[in-house]
Amino acid sequence: MSEFIAPLERLVESFQRLPGIGRKSAVRMAFATLELEESRAVEFAEAILSAKRDIRRCGCCFNLSEAELCPICSDESRDRSTVCVVEDTRALMSIERVREYNGLYHVLGGVLSPMDGIGPDQLTVKELVARCADGEVKEVIIATNPNVEGETTAMYITKLLKPFGVQVSRLAYGVPVGGDLEFADEVTLYRAIEGRRAL
Amino acid sequence: MSEFIAPLERLVESFQRLPGIGRKSAVRMAFATLELEESRAVEFAEAILSAKRDIRRCGCCFNLSEAELCPICSDESRDRSTVCVVEDTRALMSIERVREYNGLYHVLGGVLSPMDGIGPDQLTVKELVARCADGEVKEVIIATNPNVEGETTAMYITKLLKPFGVQVSRLAYGVPVGGDLEFADEVTLYRAIEGRRAL
Repeated sequence: MSEFIAPLERLVESFQRLPGIGRKSAVRMAFATLELEESRAVEFAEAILSAKRDIRRCGCCFNLSEAELCPICSDESRDRSTVCVVEDTRALMSIERVREYNGLYHVLGGVLSPMDGIGPDQLTVKELVARCADGEVKEVIIATNPNVEGETTAMYITKLLKPFGVQVSRLAYGVPVGGDLEFADEVTLYRAIEGRRAL
Repeated sequence: MSEFIAPLERLVESFQRLPGIGRKSAVRMAFATLELEESRAVEFAEAILSAKRDIRRCGCCFNLSEAELCPICSDESRDRSTVCVVEDTRALMSIERVREYNGLYHVLGGVLSPMDGIGPDQLTVKELVARCADGEVKEVIIATNPNVEGETTAMYITKLLKPFGVQVSRLAYGVPVGGDLEFADEVTLYRAIEGRRAL
C-alpha cells in the first residue's frame, strides 16, 4: 500500500528512478514539484521530453549533441589531429572547463567492466579505432578515470591503437594541486614520486 | 553562456528550481534523466503534469486530495470531534504513520512568520475557526513544529479558539525516545523536566 494518493506516488516513483535518489529525497522533490507554479511545472515536464527527443549522440565523437555533429566536432578552430578519450560527457565537460585543451574528443560511453557485462562492444571502441585508422589523428590522450576499470580500459585502447602509429598518452597521476601531502593516499603518492619531473 | 547544449541546460534549470537542489545535483539528475528509457522519461513528464492537474486541496482540511474531500475526511470511521492542526501535508503524514491518531486534521499551509510576510490570511486559520464554530469539534491538538514560529502560531490559534469552548492542546515536549540525555539540548531538557509525569 502506498502512503500517498496515486498522482503523488507516481511522481515520487519517477524521482526515485534517478540513480542516487532515495525515497526521502524523492518525496521531498515531489512535494517541491507540487509547489511549483503551473508554468514552471509545464516547463519541467517539457524539458524532460525535449531532452529525450532533441538530444542525440554526435556522429563523430559520441558527445551529446542537438545536430549530427556536436559543437566541438563542428568547430573549425579545433585541432583535429588530437583526440582525448573520455568515459562520458561529464568528463568531457570537466576538461572543457579547463580551457586548455583544443583538440577533439571521443566519448567511450563507459569503461570495460566484465563484472557488469561491459566489453569493448558496449563501448564506442570500434569507432575510435576507425577514427585513428583515418590518418588525420596523430595523438590520443586517454583520460579515463584513475581507477582500476579506467586503467584497464586505457591499456586495452593503447594496445588496439598501436598498429596505427598514433601517439597514445595518459593523463598524469600525482598529488592534486592545493592538496596536502599528509592526506594523499599511498598509491597516489607512489605515482607522484614515480612521475616526478625535473625542475 | 551556458556550458550545456540548450535542451540539457533547460532540464538542469528545471531541476535546479526545486528547493535544496544546487547546480551540481541538478546536473547529475539531468544526466540521469537522459539515461532513462524513453517510456520512463515520458512517465516522469506525465507524472509532473498529472500531479499539478489532479491534486488539489481537500475542501475541509486542506490535505492533498484527488477528490473534493481527502481520504481522511471522507473516512466515516474517524473521530470527527478531534482535529489535529499541522503545518503541512508532510507533518500530517508523519502523524498518520504512528497509526495512533484517529481524528481529523487541519493543514495550515505554513506558520506565522511576519519576516516572510506570512500572516493569518496566508494560512487556513479562518477555515479552522469556522470548523470549530460548528460545534462538532471538541478538541484541537496543535502539532506545529517545535520552534519559535510553530510556538507562536500555536499560541495565536489557542487564543482564537478560546471563545468556542473547544479543548486546545499542544504536542508534548521532551527527550526523544531512544535518545541519549547527554546529547539533548538544554531547552529540550528543561521542557522534559517541566513536563515530567508522575509514575
